[in-house]
Amino acid sequence: MKAIVITEAGGPEVLQLREVEDPKIKDDEVLIKIAATALNRADTLQRQGKYPPLRVTVSIRVLNAPVCALVGGGGYAEKVAVPAGQVLPVPPGVSLQDAAGFPEVACTVWSTVFMMSHLSKGETFLIMMEFLSASYELSAAYEELISKFSAKISYRIHGGSSGIGTFAIQLAKYHGVKVFVTAGSDEKLAACKDLGADVCINYKTEDFVSRVKEETGGQGVDVILDNIGASYLKRNLDSLNFNGRLFIIGFMGGSVAEINLTTLLARRLTVQAAGLRNRSPENKALIVSEVEKNVWPAIAAGKVKPVVYKSLPLEAAAEAHRLMESSEHIGKIILLVQ
Amino acid sequence: MKAIVITEAGGPEVLQLREVEDPKIKDDEVLIKIAATALNRADTLQRQGKYPPLRVTVSIRVLNAPVCALVGGGGYAEKVAVPAGQVLPVPPGVSLQDAAGFPEVACTVWSTVFMMSHLSKGETFLIMMEFLSASYELSAAYEELISKFSAKISYRIHGGSSGIGTFAIQLAKYHGVKVFVTAGSDEKLAACKDLGADVCINYKTEDFVSRVKEETGGQGVDVILDNIGASYLKRNLDSLNFNGRLFIIGFMGGSVAEINLTTLLARRLTVQAAGLRNRSPENKALIVSEVEKNVWPAIAAGKVKPVVYKSLPLEAAAEAHRLMESSEHIGKIILLVQ
Repeated sequence: MKAIVITEAGGPEVLQLREVEDPKIKDDEVLIKIAATALNRADTLQRQGKYPPLRVTVSIRVLNAPVCALVGGGGYAEKVAVPAGQVLPVPPGVSLQDAAGFPEVACTVWSTVFMMSHLSKGETFLIMMEFLSASYELSAAYEELISKFSAKISYRIHGGSSGIGTFAIQLAKYHGVKVFVTAGSDEKLAACKDLGADVCINYKTEDFVSRVKEETGGQGVDVILDNIGASYLKRNLDSLNFNGRLFIIGFMGGSVAEINLTTLLARRLTVQAAGLRNRSPENKALIVSEVEKNVWPAIAAGKVKPVVYKSLPLEAAAEAHRLMESSEHIGKIILLVQ
Repeated sequence: MKAIVITEAGGPEVLQLREVEDPKIKDDEVLIKIAATALNRADTLQRQGKYPPLRVTVSIRVLNAPVCALVGGGGYAEKVAVPAGQVLPVPPGVSLQDAAGFPEVACTVWSTVFMMSHLSKGETFLIMMEFLSASYELSAAYEELISKFSAKISYRIHGGSSGIGTFAIQLAKYHGVKVFVTAGSDEKLAACKDLGADVCINYKTEDFVSRVKEETGGQGVDVILDNIGASYLKRNLDSLNFNGRLFIIGFMGGSVAEINLTTLLARRLTVQAAGLRNRSPENKALIVSEVEKNVWPAIAAGKVKPVVYKSLPLEAAAEAHRLMESSEHIGKIILLVQ
């Protein structure tokens, strides 16, 4: 089969299309023919040799049924072997190609603020929109690595758009949650508003803590999904309501911070962090099954739409990486496998 | 009615028995005749003028039915007005006097590690035994206060016994949890073992992180109930299993700490803190109702026993405070109202 192969770390040009052997499947895996694969920011770090195997989301056709899947690697190819528990049907009304953009973001958002923080109908939810999908991947099993990297990568991705964020806004609205977002440009905030965000805050021109307090009658929000980490820790805690939950999935602003634990006690706060990578196949299968039950109906109902910035052929993987590194995109970048 | 009255802050001698007016009840309150009242460490700080109104637990007789209650203050007296939602029946098989020791510790333990951290059957649970009940009270609404106090009070209560701990061991065992405890003397560890603790660790002679890892096949425990705060934060996080939850209810070791957020992400950890004081009457009523449903059956079945160190008459309140401040006791100190 054809696949994108990296023989040495480097710039986008190291992504080369080659003929390779078909993947071998293990027990509980299925072999799937790939129609499209979505880029994650982590892919660019992996290409640079800063991060172990590729994680990608792919949409696939198995037994002639259109499916998509959460994949641990190998998605820049014509075929890939995937644990059966990580395969999802393509949601009704979504193209096979666009479906590639869903599994990774859906599993990330559902497994964090919904499954772990119990974000619920009637609550308020603040999303930091300038997300680096890569950041939480990067750090999962590599604490030392991220401590060194987080400062370095932050300036590069500041201003990048957020596949996680654009998805989280729509899913939260579907579940009856009032959504607050912060972003650094009016263009991005306008896009968030179009997706359903209720309160849009430009963190470059406003103090987001004051604005959150003002919009909530002084109370603060119930849940925050954050990818900034250390540099926002105090401000995030200050923005939370009684019984508030802060969920951290990235460290754009560093990972080591001072924390005043009495702040937690005074308002009964919860601080959590997690990623997808470090989970067992059983755990991933559980998340995928919960996603099918709780997220897929929202997509089928047209309440959560794919936000695809651009689709390129597989052989243009290098160009796709350049585009992602430019941070000009809003939404997912998809690679199409012909 | 007779009541213990403080006219000026100071040592135990300022606790004086006086004749005062009966309490007036508001809507949704009941007037109850007090049979016994249990000391909390917070009482001694309040006596010293370092902390606003008394919080005490009392056992009471209302409409000739023996009851006990979670009380916001006024328990060192013959009568007290209590919101109806904070009243519990005296558990079968427990004396009216001993029952005074239950509401405060039961509501604290149930509302934290069970209701918020979801401690469950089959999990492992580490309890820091040298508890200061006062510490979480002290801090709830008074962040600044505790920042100043926490360092000062820690040396005084180190070595104090734990009403919370002795209760938490028994309740966790009843719910099918494997219990680990740390304490600073073999005498206290022996008492913990008698109450059902599975793994007893002397933190003065052993590194508790290593011992926890050793006893759990390198994994760590699922939930920790901690009253040390800052100085144990790193070690507590290092002692947690994947999906582990740290619940902080006190700051004997200070409240301001450095935290590496990647530690949370790598093992999907949760950090929480809360107290009872800062809660609304509705919220307290919910907790009391959950306690009646989930804790009272354990007491009725004889699986959770009162641990009462000494019972003294109300007029010996000063002596009771001296005893508590000596930290010689193990379990609750009760004041009997004749």
